[in-house]
Amino acid sequence: MEHLVRFDVAAEPVRVPTGTLLSEAARLAGVEIGQPCGGQGRCGRCTVQVLEGAVRRRSTLRLSPEDVEAGYALACQSVVEGDVRIHVPPQEVLERRLTTDLTVTEITVPAGYNPDLDQTIRRVPLNLSEPSMEDQTDDLSRLLTGLRSQAGFTGVTVSLPILRKLGQLMRDADWQATAILDVRELFDGRALEEWLIDVLPGRVDEDEPLWGAAIDIGTTTVTVWLVDLVSGEVKAQASEYNGQIARGEDVISRIVYAGKNGGETELRELVLGTINGLLETVCKRASHKEFGGLIEVKPQEVVKAVIAGNSTMIHLLLGIPASSIRLTPFVTAFNQAPLLIAGQVGLKINPQGVVDCLPGVASYVGSDITAGVLSSGMDDTHRITLFMDVGTNGEIVLGSSEWLVTCACSAGPAFEGAGVISGMRATRGAIEEVWINGGSYETTYRVIGAGPAGAASKPSGICGSGLISLLAEMFMTGVVDKAGNINTQLETPRIREGEYGLEYVIAWGAETQHGREITITHTDIDNLLRAKGAIFAGYRVLADSVGVPLEMIEQMLIGGSFGKYINVEKAVQIGLLPDMPWDRFQFLGNTSVRGAYFALLDRRKRERIKEIASRMTYIELSADNTFYDAFMSALFLPHTDLSLFPSVVLGEQ
Amino acid sequence: MEHLVRFDVAAEPVRVPTGTLLSEAARLAGVEIGQPCGGQGRCGRCTVQVLEGAVRRRSTLRLSPEDVEAGYALACQSVVEGDVRIHVPPQEVLERRLTTDLTVTEITVPAGYNPDLDQTIRRVPLNLSEPSMEDQTDDLSRLLTGLRSQAGFTGVTVSLPILRKLGQLMRDADWQATAILDVRELFDGRALEEWLIDVLPGRVDEDEPLWGAAIDIGTTTVTVWLVDLVSGEVKAQASEYNGQIARGEDVISRIVYAGKNGGETELRELVLGTINGLLETVCKRASHKEFGGLIEVKPQEVVKAVIAGNSTMIHLLLGIPASSIRLTPFVTAFNQAPLLIAGQVGLKINPQGVVDCLPGVASYVGSDITAGVLSSGMDDTHRITLFMDVGTNGEIVLGSSEWLVTCACSAGPAFEGAGVISGMRATRGAIEEVWINGGSYETTYRVIGAGPAGAASKPSGICGSGLISLLAEMFMTGVVDKAGNINTQLETPRIREGEYGLEYVIAWGAETQHGREITITHTDIDNLLRAKGAIFAGYRVLADSVGVPLEMIEQMLIGGSFGKYINVEKAVQIGLLPDMPWDRFQFLGNTSVRGAYFALLDRRKRERIKEIASRMTYIELSADNTFYDAFMSALFLPHTDLSLFPSVVLGEQ
Repeated sequence: MEHLVRFDVAAEPVRVPTGTLLSEAARLAGVEIGQPCGGQGRCGRCTVQVLEGAVRRRSTLRLSPEDVEAGYALACQSVVEGDVRIHVPPQEVLERRLTTDLTVTEITVPAGYNPDLDQTIRRVPLNLSEPSMEDQTDDLSRLLTGLRSQAGFTGVTVSLPILRKLGQLMRDADWQATAILDVRELFDGRALEEWLIDVLPGRVDEDEPLWGAAIDIGTTTVTVWLVDLVSGEVKAQASEYNGQIARGEDVISRIVYAGKNGGETELRELVLGTINGLLETVCKRASHKEFGGLIEVKPQEVVKAVIAGNSTMIHLLLGIPASSIRLTPFVTAFNQAPLLIAGQVGLKINPQGVVDCLPGVASYVGSDITAGVLSSGMDDTHRITLFMDVGTNGEIVLGSSEWLVTCACSAGPAFEGAGVISGMRATRGAIEEVWINGGSYETTYRVIGAGPAGAASKPSGICGSGLISLLAEMFMTGVVDKAGNINTQLETPRIREGEYGLEYVIAWGAETQHGREITITHTDIDNLLRAKGAIFAGYRVLADSVGVPLEMIEQMLIGGSFGKYINVEKAVQIGLLPDMPWDRFQFLGNTSVRGAYFALLDRRKRERIKEIASRMTYIELSADNTFYDAFMSALFLPHTDLSLFPSVVLGEQ
Repeated sequence: MEHLVRFDVAAEPVRVPTGTLLSEAARLAGVEIGQPCGGQGRCGRCTVQVLEGAVRRRSTLRLSPEDVEAGYALACQSVVEGDVRIHVPPQEVLERRLTTDLTVTEITVPAGYNPDLDQTIRRVPLNLSEPSMEDQTDDLSRLLTGLRSQAGFTGVTVSLPILRKLGQLMRDADWQATAILDVRELFDGRALEEWLIDVLPGRVDEDEPLWGAAIDIGTTTVTVWLVDLVSGEVKAQASEYNGQIARGEDVISRIVYAGKNGGETELRELVLGTINGLLETVCKRASHKEFGGLIEVKPQEVVKAVIAGNSTMIHLLLGIPASSIRLTPFVTAFNQAPLLIAGQVGLKINPQGVVDCLPGVASYVGSDITAGVLSSGMDDTHRITLFMDVGTNGEIVLGSSEWLVTCACSAGPAFEGAGVISGMRATRGAIEEVWINGGSYETTYRVIGAGPAGAASKPSGICGSGLISLLAEMFMTGVVDKAGNINTQLETPRIREGEYGLEYVIAWGAETQHGREITITHTDIDNLLRAKGAIFAGYRVLADSVGVPLEMIEQMLIGGSFGKYINVEKAVQIGLLPDMPWDRFQFLGNTSVRGAYFALLDRRKRERIKEIASRMTYIELSADNTFYDAFMSALFLPHTDLSLFPSVVLGEQ
C-alpha cells in the first residue's frame, strides 16, 4: 500500500509504500535531513515532527515521552503507516555553504621547481609530415614516430578515445599538434611507460598553463587547488562541505550507510558531485581577462589530479566497499590504489587524465596523513615531532627522519560541533570563544561573522573552538570540577536542571538568533571529555610505544582546519594538547591538500609519500592494552596526573 | 510536418518528418533493406514500390520510366512528402541466416602446444592467509604478495572493477582464489607487465577449460571460434553475415555510410551485435552434459579475444573513423591497435578480458591478410608462393620466407553475387555451377540446397562460383567472344534484347522460385571481366614488381570462403586464376580466423604476425603506372596475351 508524505519544506508530496523510513521519504522529496550517526538512531539529529497521520517509531532514543506526545520522531527510525504531514525543524536542515573564502591559504611554489625534471606530465609540441602516396604511414605510427624522434618517448600507450579522434584532429591541424603525456616508472624503475593523455591541435606555447589539481577529501570538507604545472603556482582554491555529510558525520556512519542498498553508489556520487563542483569553481576563479579577451579555464583542461584523504573517503570515492575498515581486524581493500583514469573514476577533468590517489597506511591512517607528514616536513627533521591532524578522527604521528609511528583515535565529531546539543560547525553564527566571569559566572563570547562592534551577529550555536574555550573557562572558574561535574552549589541561574538534565546556559534566548537558549549539558561535557581524552591517550600510547616521554617532544605540528581556530592555552587547560612551551606548537592548516600539491608537482615527493607510508609503523589502539588505561586517566580536566600539566596547575593556584 | 509511413512487411507504421529518406523510415520501422552501395543510389538494390502517397525521387538511376510509372523508387534516394504506403519486394529484404554449419572446419591443435610456455594467459591458484589483528595487510597487497610469492608475478596491474569486488570475493572464498592474468611484454621485451583479468573464488582445477575466442570480421561474414586455452582445442565454431551488410556490401560503401550522421555508431553496434551473438552461439554449442549436470559455458568466461579483419572492419569495430582509408593517400588511422579491454570495445566477454586486434599493413591489406599469411605458412617456406584471399576485395601476397610483397585490388562484390542483375550469395537457391550445350546453347545447372534428385530446389539467382562457371562455359561455347560480347548470330532464344540490353537467359521463369527469369546481361559480364581483370592484374603487377614471372610461382594458396566453391578449371578458363598445373593450387578456407587462432594460442605466433606485417612491402596499385595496362589487357577472356593461358588455348582447339 502507498501513502502520501508531505514535508512542510518540500514543494511536492511524495508517494511511498507502507514501511518506508521517513528519512528515505525525505531523500525522495529532496529534503536534506542530517544523519550524523548514519541513520542508526543514536544522535537524534534527524528529529522531525509528525503533524498528521501515522508513523511507527522503531526507536525513540534521545526523545522524551513528551517529545513523542508532541509528535516528534527520529526520521531514520520511523516508518510511514499512512498519509502523513511532516514538519522539518529548520535547524535540522543542513546548510550547504562554501567555506572557501575563509580558508584560502598563501602558498609559495617550492624553490627550484623545474617541470622538466620534476613533473610526470610532459607537453610535447609535434611537427609531423603529411601523409602522401610516397608515405602511407598510418596516423598512429606517424604520431608515435614523432614522439620518439622529436621527444625521445619510446613506450607510449594510446587509448581508444585518443585513437578515435586522432585522424581528424591531425588533418584539421595540418599535422601540427601538442601531445600531453604522463610518464610513469614501472616496477621500481625497471621500465618507463608513457600514457598519452591527450593530443591537442596546433603547437602550444611552452609558457601556456598546463592544469593539474590537488584534492583533499575530508570527511567533513573537500578542498581543491588548481595548479599550473608549468609555473607550479596554485592559481585558485576552493573548499566545500563533503556532499556525504547528510549521510553520516563520521567515517563509521558513512561505512554503515554505504552498506545499505544503493548507499555505496549514492555516497560515491555525492562526493564526486562535490569535487566536480569545486573543479568548476576553481576553474572559474582562474579564468581571467587578457588582451581584452576572456581566457577561460575549463575542468576538461585539467590533465592530472592527485588526491589525498582518509582511507574510507578514498574507498567511497572509487566505489570500493569499505566495510572491512569497520570490522575486526580493520583491514582496507587497498592502501595504494593503482593509477587511474579520470573518466573511469568519474572526475570531470580530461577523461584520459590521470588520477593518483596517494598511498595510505591503514584503515584509520590514510593518505591525508602520509601527505600531511610530507608537507609538515617531520619526515625530514632530526627533531622529535608530534604531528596531529584533528578532523572527525584524530590521527597522530610521532617521529622524525629516522622513525615514524602512527595511530588513530576516534575523537568523534564533538570538536566539529556535532554530538553536542547546541553544537554547530565553525560557520557564521557560531560562538568561537567564551569567557566566564569568575565571580558572577556570567559569560562573554565572540561570534563568527560578527561585525566590528560585535553586535551585528547573534549566536545560533557553539563550534569546536568555542567548546574548547568554554570547557577551559568552566574548569578554571570552578563551574565544573576535574571530573567535569557541574557545580550545583554555585549561585547563578545559568546552572540549572534543563530538559536533558543538568546544564549551563551560555546564551539566553533573547541573545540568540533563533530565540532558544544555547547551553551545554552534562552529557555534552562527557562527550567532550571523551573526545579530548581519546586524543591525549593516543599520543600518550604512541609516545610510550617508542619510549619517548611527552616532554621530549621538540615540536608539535597541528594540521586540519581544526587547527586554525584553536586557542592553545585553553586546549592545554582542558588537557587536549600536551603541556609544553607554546613556541613548540605550530599550526599548519590543511596539510593534506598541501601534501597532494607537492606530490602533483614533484615525482620525487610522490615517491617520498610512498616511502613515508611504508616506513610508518601503525599502532592499532583497539588492540593496545595500555590505551584503555591511558584513555580513562585522560577523562579528567586536565588529567588525573597533574604532573603532566604543570602550567595548568600553576594557573589554577 | 510529420507523415505516416506504412511498410507492408512491418507490423507498425512509423511517423517521420517531411524529407525523411524511405531507407531511414525503413530502418525506423525495423525493415531491412539492402544497400550494397551504401545508400548512394548506384546499385538499385533498395528498390521499393510506392503503393500510395507522395515521395520525391532525387535519383532514378537503374529505374526505367515505366518503373517510376509503376511506383518504383530507390529507398535511399526518395524522401517522404506525405503519408505513404510502401511495398518492399521480398527478394530485396535481406535474409539473415547462419552459414555456420556449412563451414565448420576441422582443426588440429598445433603439435607440442604447451599453455605454460605458449600462452599469454595464465591461471594462478592462490592460497592466501586471512587478515588478523597481527596481520592487517590490505586486501590488494595481500593478493599482490600472493601473486609474487606463489607465482612469481611482480608487475601486476589491477583495475578498478577488480578492486571493487576483491574484498567480498576473498572473504566469501576463505582466501582461496584463482587469478587470471594476461602477461604482456612491453617495449620489445624490456619489461614484463601482467594485467589482472579476473579473480575467481576458489581454486580451479588446472584441467578446467579456460576460454578464448578467435574472431575473423569479414566484410560479408563474421566467424568466431571458441578455444579452450588449456588444451588448445577449438570447441565450437560459428559464422554469420556481418550485421553491417545492409548498410553497404563493400568497404567503401561502409566507410561512406559511417561518414553519415550516426553511421559510425550504427555500424559499430551492428558488427558488435553480430560478434556478441556468435559468442553466445559458440558458448551454447560448447555447453555440454557431464556427470548428469549441464556444464554451461558463458561468454563472460571468455578472457581473451584475438581479432583479424580488413582494416576498415577493425576501424569500424573500434569506432575509429575510417574515412582516410577511402581518400588519397589511403592512410589508416592505425595498423596496430593497442591491446584493449573487452568492456571498452563492447565485446560481451569478461569485461576485463583482453582484446587483441592483429596488426595490418595498409588501408587495403589488413590483419585478415597478415593472419592469413601466417596460417598459410607461406612466410615459412622457400618455395615462391602466391597467396590470395578473395572476398569483397582481392588481397594478394607474393613471396616466401625471404620476402613478401602485397597489394589489394578492388574486385568488387561481383563474385559474391552483388552488382549482377541475377546475382545472389552462395546460399540455398543459388546456381553454383552451369553447363552450356555447345550445339543447342541450352543450360544445365546445379543449385545449392537441391535435393538428391536435383528437383527439390528451384533457383532464385546465381552466386559467384556459378558466375565463374557460367562465364567460362559461355566463352568455351562461343556464346561470348574474347571481349565478352554476346554473339547475337547464334540461333537460340536465350540470347535476346532484354530490359537492360543484350542478355543470355540462364533459367526461364517457369524453372525459378520466383517465376522471373535468371539472366546475365552484357553489363554483368563487363562487371565480371573487371573483377577478374583487377585480380589478375594485381598478381601480375605484384610479380613484375619483384621480377618473378608467373610461371615461377611454385604454389598458389587461396583463402577466403570464396575458395571453397570455386572450380579451378573454369576460373583458369576465364583468366581469374593463372594457368598453372592444378596441383599447385591449394584451397585453405578461412585463413584469417585460423591465423587469429594461432595467435591466440601462441605468443610467438602473435609476434610472428607482427613481423609479417612489418616485413610485407605494400604496393599501392592506384599509384602504379603498370597496373592500368595490366588491368586493360586482363579485360579479355582469358587474356589478350594467350601465351599466359596455354591450357585454355589447347582446350579451345
